[in-house]
Amino acid sequence: MTPIGVAVVGAGTLGKRHAENVCRAIPGARLAAVVDRDLDRARQVAAELGVERAAAHFEQIAARDDIQAVVIASPSKFHAEGIQAAARAGKHIFCEKPISLSLEDARAALEAVSGAGVLLQLGFMRRYDPAYSNAKRRIDSGEIGDPIMFKSLGRDRQPPPAVFYQGGVNGTLFSDSAIHDFDLGRWLMNDEIAEVHTFAGLLASPEIAEFGDIDVCLVNLRFRRGGIGNVEAFRKSNYGYDIRTEITGTKGTIQIGYLQQTANLTLTASRVSYDVVDHWLVRFREAYRLELASFVSAIQKGGPALVTGEDGVRALEAALAAERSFHEGRVATVAAPETLPPANDKP
Amino acid sequence: MTPIGVAVVGAGTLGKRHAENVCRAIPGARLAAVVDRDLDRARQVAAELGVERAAAHFEQIAARDDIQAVVIASPSKFHAEGIQAAARAGKHIFCEKPISLSLEDARAALEAVSGAGVLLQLGFMRRYDPAYSNAKRRIDSGEIGDPIMFKSLGRDRQPPPAVFYQGGVNGTLFSDSAIHDFDLGRWLMNDEIAEVHTFAGLLASPEIAEFGDIDVCLVNLRFRRGGIGNVEAFRKSNYGYDIRTEITGTKGTIQIGYLQQTANLTLTASRVSYDVVDHWLVRFREAYRLELASFVSAIQKGGPALVTGEDGVRALEAALAAERSFHEGRVATVAAPETLPPANDKP
Amino acid sequence: MTPIGVAVVGAGTLGKRHAENVCRAIPGARLAAVVDRDLDRARQVAAELGVERAAAHFEQIAARDDIQAVVIASPSKFHAEGIQAAARAGKHIFCEKPISLSLEDARAALEAVSGAGVLLQLGFMRRYDPAYSNAKRRIDSGEIGDPIMFKSLGRDRQPPPAVFYQGGVNGTLFSDSAIHDFDLGRWLMNDEIAEVHTFAGLLASPEIAEFGDIDVCLVNLRFRRGGIGNVEAFRKSNYGYDIRTEITGTKGTIQIGYLQQTANLTLTASRVSYDVVDHWLVRFREAYRLELASFVSAIQKGGPALVTGEDGVRALEAALAAERSFHEGRVATVAAPETLPPANDKP
Amino acid sequence: MTPIGVAVVGAGTLGKRHAENVCRAIPGARLAAVVDRDLDRARQVAAELGVERAAAHFEQIAARDDIQAVVIASPSKFHAEGIQAAARAGKHIFCEKPISLSLEDARAALEAVSGAGVLLQLGFMRRYDPAYSNAKRRIDSGEIGDPIMFKSLGRDRQPPPAVFYQGGVNGTLFSDSAIHDFDLGRWLMNDEIAEVHTFAGLLASPEIAEFGDIDVCLVNLRFRRGGIGNVEAFRKSNYGYDIRTEITGTKGTIQIGYLQQTANLTLTASRVSYDVVDHWLVRFREAYRLELASFVSAIQKGGPALVTGEDGVRALEAALAAERSFHEGRVATVAAPETLPPANDKP
Repeated sequence: MTPIGVAVVGAGTLGKRHAENVCRAIPGARLAAVVDRDLDRARQVAAELGVERAAAHFEQIAARDDIQAVVIASPSKFHAEGIQAAARAGKHIFCEKPISLSLEDARAALEAVSGAGVLLQLGFMRRYDPAYSNAKRRIDSGEIGDPIMFKSLGRDRQPPPAVFYQGGVNGTLFSDSAIHDFDLGRWLMNDEIAEVHTFAGLLASPEIAEFGDIDVCLVNLRFRRGGIGNVEAFRKSNYGYDIRTEITGTKGTIQIGYLQQTANLTLTASRVSYDVVDHWLVRFREAYRLELASFVSAIQKGGPALVTGEDGVRALEAALAAERSFHEGRVATVAAPETLPPANDKP
Repeated sequence: MTPIGVAVVGAGTLGKRHAENVCRAIPGARLAAVVDRDLDRARQVAAELGVERAAAHFEQIAARDDIQAVVIASPSKFHAEGIQAAARAGKHIFCEKPISLSLEDARAALEAVSGAGVLLQLGFMRRYDPAYSNAKRRIDSGEIGDPIMFKSLGRDRQPPPAVFYQGGVNGTLFSDSAIHDFDLGRWLMNDEIAEVHTFAGLLASPEIAEFGDIDVCLVNLRFRRGGIGNVEAFRKSNYGYDIRTEITGTKGTIQIGYLQQTANLTLTASRVSYDVVDHWLVRFREAYRLELASFVSAIQKGGPALVTGEDGVRALEAALAAERSFHEGRVATVAAPETLPPANDKP
Repeated sequence: MTPIGVAVVGAGTLGKRHAENVCRAIPGARLAAVVDRDLDRARQVAAELGVERAAAHFEQIAARDDIQAVVIASPSKFHAEGIQAAARAGKHIFCEKPISLSLEDARAALEAVSGAGVLLQLGFMRRYDPAYSNAKRRIDSGEIGDPIMFKSLGRDRQPPPAVFYQGGVNGTLFSDSAIHDFDLGRWLMNDEIAEVHTFAGLLASPEIAEFGDIDVCLVNLRFRRGGIGNVEAFRKSNYGYDIRTEITGTKGTIQIGYLQQTANLTLTASRVSYDVVDHWLVRFREAYRLELASFVSAIQKGGPALVTGEDGVRALEAALAAERSFHEGRVATVAAPETLPPANDKP
Repeated sequence: MTPIGVAVVGAGTLGKRHAENVCRAIPGARLAAVVDRDLDRARQVAAELGVERAAAHFEQIAARDDIQAVVIASPSKFHAEGIQAAARAGKHIFCEKPISLSLEDARAALEAVSGAGVLLQLGFMRRYDPAYSNAKRRIDSGEIGDPIMFKSLGRDRQPPPAVFYQGGVNGTLFSDSAIHDFDLGRWLMNDEIAEVHTFAGLLASPEIAEFGDIDVCLVNLRFRRGGIGNVEAFRKSNYGYDIRTEITGTKGTIQIGYLQQTANLTLTASRVSYDVVDHWLVRFREAYRLELASFVSAIQKGGPALVTGEDGVRALEAALAAERSFHEGRVATVAAPETLPPANDKP
């Protein structure tokens, strides 16, 4: 089978990782081009990976026949227009989360995808993490009864660098970070988020005050079928990258999460200590590989994607509602009932 | 030093434990009488512990000179009147949580205590648990910087039996269970709870529907100095008694909690498993002993109690606000600002 | 029932703990006297516990009718003669491990006990630790199949003080420390130790070289029915008091042991750390209480003791063989076959 | 740089993994041929990986210029002759452990390597596992003081299939399994094993009795500089693949090992359970990749290999001595003093 040619758009930390995975770890795929507004950066990543084609703009390579798919890893603000451009060019699309920073743009992008008949997969990579997918299987098998409570937290060791915040191109704590947990909540609870309430603040990282973002939020959740939950996103744990989720059902509970990077425990007179996972590229190394493999496989089989554009919209709705609740100081409804599809069918 | 004579009022599960501790584990104290509306039960506990005096009503023993202190472990609804009666009789008072089911009664009880000049200690035993008191010391020493986030959960293995719910004498999930966590939040954050928001429901234990209580709640918290947090109370984990708390500061985090009852791990072909703590009497055995020792010591030294009646009122205010938020579907303010004392001084 | 009067002989760290337990934590027992060659120490412990009688020598109180039992916690060298004296006086005997430092003296002591018709219980308290007794039940229930391998280690944080070593009155690393593990091996494997091989040395604590003892040993074990195992004793872990045991069977494995003292985990930028159990009095607090309660209960019921004098002899034989193996540089047989009783026939 | 052409000799489970790694995960290497006495198997692996050349015998491809290196993953009995053949052909050699089943053959193979001037790396992949290499760095940095005790165990979930044992081509429990731990002991202690003592047996897997091997051994170790240790190898844990190592020094201890495969904990009424790593290919996935990357890098840089042929001989000597001790029932010396090089002088 001819390998699928993939262009990676956005050659930052994560774009580069996707490019490496396409190159080395995904049978059936071939890295065809690297695109970045910073052409030097595009060229450097392309060179490191032995790929000839680098470009500053996707349009410069959109017409190429040897490119069947695009991985969009540009700043979040440009995701929706990236989807539109790729759809117009008839390419299958893997897009990093969030699908957009506005619901309008997201809806327009989904229409473009639908019109073009291409495949769109959203980059909620946690669904591919072995611990999370194992938990999903257990929940769906009934091992913990009916899921009734969902708790999830995500903590970075340190806030992203200033460049991340400049121009607001990467959204806020809600749309950039907590959105992962909103997606997990929908997926693991097999339900939709109906209402949210947020307390939040800039409590540990005064250095990001100038960018108008916060560094910690606690979001209370109510699901449509009655389940409840909460989500924490925090930018500055100091101790490590900490991702934990707990789903409680009528018969039991599943916990997901760990802090240890290696299996070492050092015991001395002054302390018992171990190494903590430092970074999301380490914690979710395998998930990033598996989601791309799944994307390529979906293209080969004619779809569908396991994480859809609609999933991207739903999580964004929750994130924006959580942000609204914070600003308004009251409970926020996630989406108008008339636009809601039926709750997820259990697989 | 003559031992302090202690009457235990309420000879249920916890009252009996307090009586045993007074008898056997608290140097300086002597069990002088056991009181229970069910006189047979009072007599049985007294007999088991080798104490002669049992009574159906505190008034029957209130005048005795060999009783200097009372431990109130009756149903919650009768705590405030028990405090009033003991104060009138000039006895020092250890009262189980909650101090009352109504703020009015609680305030009146505190006035009676104040008027009588006796000592009142509230039964928030978690403050005496070695893990919690160790965490408190670490936080106050600055080890995690300024505390900014508080998360706490309490899960029973199974809901209490029907008799617990009858007549509503033991309050609700908020005033009976989550109140422990509200107290921990105030204590560990060195702050007062300002606002709460609750999602809750009866999701796992339909058998208690007839009593009008719920079995799970998630309460979002905002503290006065800006910290945030949340609290979970759940009646039916199925797997064990699970108490966990996490305090996050600007420099680090402290986690408190464990599930293992013994240090055994059994590894077989079908499972890797361990024993889980089953019951609060097991998890907090030492805390129950230490809080009574502290009470007796405070009496001997002329006070003060480490957990005061005011602490009891504050936690009750938070619990009632959390319940109000649940019923009204919106954020609830914890207490009117004019009645608030200055935030806790750090020790 | 009249409480059983107990004299504690030896008022050092452990003797004092036994005295406290008799006083406060063992229903049915009464502390009747404290005996120590250092009469001031005996008097001080007696005074702290509100007991009138203190003596320098057991003989001074041997004739008292209000003493029915003796707890021997003197230095190991004096255990056997203490048993003889107590047996002559017709007292029931709880004796700390080891039963003696010589097999001859141990045998003579057992004969005295047998002749006097009193009860003798050995102080292998680990058998009463909830984790160990739970493991024993699981093994005997067949949960791990037939036990085939036994591994056990015991580590002190720091070597005992110089006074412990002076005069050799407390035996060696083998007879003082590893003897616990030899007893556990016999008990958990339901078998007798047949052969041992030892590598050992003074590797971490040069300060005890003057006393002629070592600070670490690794003893390979072969049991009579074919099982194998090993034991480690180490005097200077630096990080804490560490007791771990693992029994492997044909169907699974049970691990016993933990290092955490409280349920706290502190996570900061420089380390993730937790508290470690520091001392055996902390780790085995409950076991020390339970073994005395069991002793008192056995007296009340007319026996038998759950840990017998024969158990004390068997463990001593293994300890002495391990020491012999170390000195001779070859495998040592534990006991001459002709003197061996049938292997334990416990289930 | 032209990629290094690699032929993989032996296309069983591990050979196939090596071939996959060369193909997909090792920049700078190229899979040039797959060799297996079972030509169909060689062809199948080659086809799966898109390689044209498959052969039944190394000699058939030995002359090819596009092959610069050989990975030997044939049965252990053929390792030494494989090294000889590859050396004769002037290829660099990566050889799975053990280097041979006989010391004579091993020595002859090393001479051939030395004469040919090629690079030889032994497949002790644990040295490349992130947990082990992290521990090595900590030990060498002095974090635990001078290492004085080494304990290591390796347990398979189930014994290998009958085909593994047939003809004795894969050695014994000592030379196939415990040899990993002997290598770890030498490496982590920075010392040589001087003496060993073994208790062992066929205790859990009667089905392998016909092959004359045992399924469990406990080997006591004495190192030349005085350190002591022990090693366990066990074929049938039932619960999972369990690899644990502990190095104790004069100032502290490092533990390496874990049992959990994912970060999931499932808590239900009947059990608290988690997934256990099942297989060595899972536990050491990254180590297998890193050791080949290190091999290719050593070739590119002109050596040296980080795990040498001499390391292979040393570990084999310890394994054979452990086996001898078992058969003779006494302590065995590892190697004649006159042939011993100075102890490792690595930091």
